[in-house]
Amino acid sequence: MRGRLITIEGGEGAGKSTQIGTLVAALAAAGIEALRTREPGGAPGAEAIRALLVNGGTDRWDPVTETLLHYAARREHVVRLIQPALARGAWVVSDRFADSTMAYQSYAQGVPRTQVEAIHAAALGAMRPDLTLLLDLPVAVGLARAGARGATNRYERFDADFHERVRAGFLDIARREPERCAVIDATAAPELVHAAILAAVTARLGVALRPAAIAASPT
Amino acid sequence: MRGRLITIEGGEGAGKSTQIGTLVAALAAAGIEALRTREPGGAPGAEAIRALLVNGGTDRWDPVTETLLHYAARREHVVRLIQPALARGAWVVSDRFADSTMAYQSYAQGVPRTQVEAIHAAALGAMRPDLTLLLDLPVAVGLARAGARGATNRYERFDADFHERVRAGFLDIARREPERCAVIDATAAPELVHAAILAAVTARLGVALRPAAIAASPT
Repeated sequence: MRGRLITIEGGEGAGKSTQIGTLVAALAAAGIEALRTREPGGAPGAEAIRALLVNGGTDRWDPVTETLLHYAARREHVVRLIQPALARGAWVVSDRFADSTMAYQSYAQGVPRTQVEAIHAAALGAMRPDLTLLLDLPVAVGLARAGARGATNRYERFDADFHERVRAGFLDIARREPERCAVIDATAAPELVHAAILAAVTARLGVALRPAAIAASPT
Repeated sequence: MRGRLITIEGGEGAGKSTQIGTLVAALAAAGIEALRTREPGGAPGAEAIRALLVNGGTDRWDPVTETLLHYAARREHVVRLIQPALARGAWVVSDRFADSTMAYQSYAQGVPRTQVEAIHAAALGAMRPDLTLLLDLPVAVGLARAGARGATNRYERFDADFHERVRAGFLDIARREPERCAVIDATAAPELVHAAILAAVTARLGVALRPAAIAASPT
């Protein structure tokens, strides 16, 4: 039986890494082979493209170029890692996926939605995640968390207005596709966010899961 | 007055570098500001993407990923270098452009034509060169020349069948768009190839040019 692709989306500092680790542990405890991965990246070529995207100045790339680079990395990730894993029945939990490109490059950087959709279709056809969990929290809270851990990449260096557009973009995407997307309040304590995630996975994908201990964030 | 974009296409060892240098000299002698550039590359970000494309094993990238990477580099090249140059009236002569992606990634690597066209449209709209000069020669001759100069990149490491499909692809592209493309016999002596190029530029773009001394190849 084909596996499931779950994507975790949200702005900087939303707690995605911690929650993915804990979700994968809960899936494993239920006997489900679950792979943790991330974007941009997740395959050797995609990680090389990631280095171009997360380093350098905020104006390093034209926004359409940036969209094409994210989809080049995503195509590699899907073909080399995600599709083979799903085909053998494994579940894949990805830190970011296509919604991040729509939120960052379209809502925040201004590439028209139809242009991003055309690139998605050319790169991946109609492929969509089975479930997307949007970890939502106010921009100031997320940037303070991200700053505290000291791991600044190029996207964290965009200004607060940019991150407000990203947040509004993610929420709009979730409103447009409510059957695929679940919005989770990421200001709550990690245990409560985890419980909300498990409830969404159970409700949307029909598997019963027991809470796992909160995993330490790898960052 | 807007400048003109001339692209030089052809397989490995066709003599593109030499002929571009000589054509640019002939344009400059006629008082036309002419810029020489190349793909993948031609802008700082595009050169960084080039490094991903020309190094590594022949199976490093999925062919659709490779198409997206070429268009990411091309978008950067067009936005940062080609469009500003054309806008100020300069002519641009590029060693490779979109036809190379169609010949290599579609005809030789099997990405459907419509998929490459969709990525072109999303990246660049309807943009096309004003004139494309296809330097055509038998594969064995080109690969022997390329091997002799010792500058092997990833594309030169594909097998002879691959390069036969590239050549056939270029010729088919030229048959499909005869008003844009001129096929030049690249087996002739460099002076004769140069004369054929000048004749095509004069006939298609309406400028009279006098032959320049054959430029040394930069490779």
